[in-house]
Amino acid sequence: MSSSSLLEQISTFMNEQIPFQQYLGIVVTRFDAQQSEVRFRWKEELVGNAPMQILHGGATATALDTAGGVVIMASVIERLNKDLSPEEIVQRIARCGTIDLRVDYVRPGRGEEFITTATIIRSGNKVAVARMEMHNNEGMLIAFGTGTYIVG
Amino acid sequence: MSSSSLLEQISTFMNEQIPFQQYLGIVVTRFDAQQSEVRFRWKEELVGNAPMQILHGGATATALDTAGGVVIMASVIERLNKDLSPEEIVQRIARCGTIDLRVDYVRPGRGEEFITTATIIRSGNKVAVARMEMHNNEGMLIAFGTGTYIVG
Amino acid sequence: MSSSSLLEQISTFMNEQIPFQQYLGIVVTRFDAQQSEVRFRWKEELVGNAPMQILHGGATATALDTAGGVVIMASVIERLNKDLSPEEIVQRIARCGTIDLRVDYVRPGRGEEFITTATIIRSGNKVAVARMEMHNNEGMLIAFGTGTYIVG
Amino acid sequence: MSSSSLLEQISTFMNEQIPFQQYLGIVVTRFDAQQSEVRFRWKEELVGNAPMQILHGGATATALDTAGGVVIMASVIERLNKDLSPEEIVQRIARCGTIDLRVDYVRPGRGEEFITTATIIRSGNKVAVARMEMHNNEGMLIAFGTGTYIVG
Repeated sequence: MSSSSLLEQISTFMNEQIPFQQYLGIVVTRFDAQQSEVRFRWKEELVGNAPMQILHGGATATALDTAGGVVIMASVIERLNKDLSPEEIVQRIARCGTIDLRVDYVRPGRGEEFITTATIIRSGNKVAVARMEMHNNEGMLIAFGTGTYIVG
Repeated sequence: MSSSSLLEQISTFMNEQIPFQQYLGIVVTRFDAQQSEVRFRWKEELVGNAPMQILHGGATATALDTAGGVVIMASVIERLNKDLSPEEIVQRIARCGTIDLRVDYVRPGRGEEFITTATIIRSGNKVAVARMEMHNNEGMLIAFGTGTYIVG
Repeated sequence: MSSSSLLEQISTFMNEQIPFQQYLGIVVTRFDAQQSEVRFRWKEELVGNAPMQILHGGATATALDTAGGVVIMASVIERLNKDLSPEEIVQRIARCGTIDLRVDYVRPGRGEEFITTATIIRSGNKVAVARMEMHNNEGMLIAFGTGTYIVG
Repeated sequence: MSSSSLLEQISTFMNEQIPFQQYLGIVVTRFDAQQSEVRFRWKEELVGNAPMQILHGGATATALDTAGGVVIMASVIERLNKDLSPEEIVQRIARCGTIDLRVDYVRPGRGEEFITTATIIRSGNKVAVARMEMHNNEGMLIAFGTGTYIVG
């Protein structure tokens, strides 16, 4: 299986197998085995503080966890035997999971669009760690965080 | 303003001013200035891993942050001057916010209903800390965490 | 190797192979595969805030990480093949390590003695998670935290 | 009081009022209201894993908390009324404290010297947040973390 079809495989997994991501409107816009980017647009359903018109911290946490998860999966796939079938690859991805997540909220979540990037910090056979940052469309840092993931 | 109408005030705030909470189906079921409980039912939109049928970690994080936020708000209100108008109370609540959140995922999020409880650990004029746990309807611990909040 | 000599083996490891623990005066007072307790006495060298006479947060973090590490090691050893030699056991213990640690400081660290307990929350082949609490000799909660550990 | 004597004031506080920092050999080498750097040299007393010759995670946590604390204090002092006496300044610094600390351990702590830097991420009247990184003398990232601090 070629590298580019692997990437398609992951995109398909992300877009079809993660309903909550779609429910929030989070789209994976870029990734490789080192870094990822996901984006979502402001919508009323994501608000956590209506009087102040601020994004809910749970939406931010979800975006951070999603960006971290994408780069972890890509990093796992990169190491897999290239002869695996698409089904086997999906099985391996499905075994990854978040162990713990820390989110630091820096500024009120306001903006038209939110861009979250993740970078692999530690990558092992058992555990991987990613660091994430979320900015709004004006480049302001809204939140950052760290996720520790078990790898299948 | 009586204590019971204060509680109604918060319930109203939670139910009408936090759209993301409603979007996920999270309902505040119990709280005072020391502890809170929120619940939500399994629904497909909250899934993070469709092949494995596991809740998204972001939904869990949202429930934990919500439970923590409720008990923090109740604790803030308890200390307020009792002569404040409902509008002033809502203003004070609206100024509370999450500084940081840590979630530890213990078991795959499976179940029909998820019950999250929060307890105040530290309560100050500037900062309050709550500790949260989420169980499923069979009493299995799914996740726990800690939230640090700024108080208005 | 009998279970009791296994415990001696760990005690020896803790007391002889962890110089920093001794440097701070932290003593392992109790443990099995589910829980542990470590203690240390107030001494001037551990102070982080001399005008206020408060323990350094790093001393607290060290006690929490130590208690967590002890219960993780005991839990790893419990699952090992009982025919392993003491050298092999020490090798396995030595491969355990902290992935991440979160400490929540609840009250100023004051007291004559500090007692830290750890409980296993998640125990797997790759990763284990422990939750810790530190009280002073008057029973006041000083700090709590969570550690995620890789297991050898 | 001039800005340079303010800095001397802090240095004096750090070096004389924080016994645990001296006990570990941690020296503040650089700081302003935005960033700080602290260093310590390898010594046997700081070892957490003698068979593997790895630094104790508690020593790393202490260095991160120290670097974070220094930049928080500098940032607090920068905002103070310049007419305060040295005693008043020390009083204000002494009121700062760590609320929570997260440490992510990336690689085994090995090296001759360890350099920890901290950067202010959030700076408010009530709470400040700093992000820290520790490298060894060969430039390898050993650990990173985040500290949330109450400001006096």
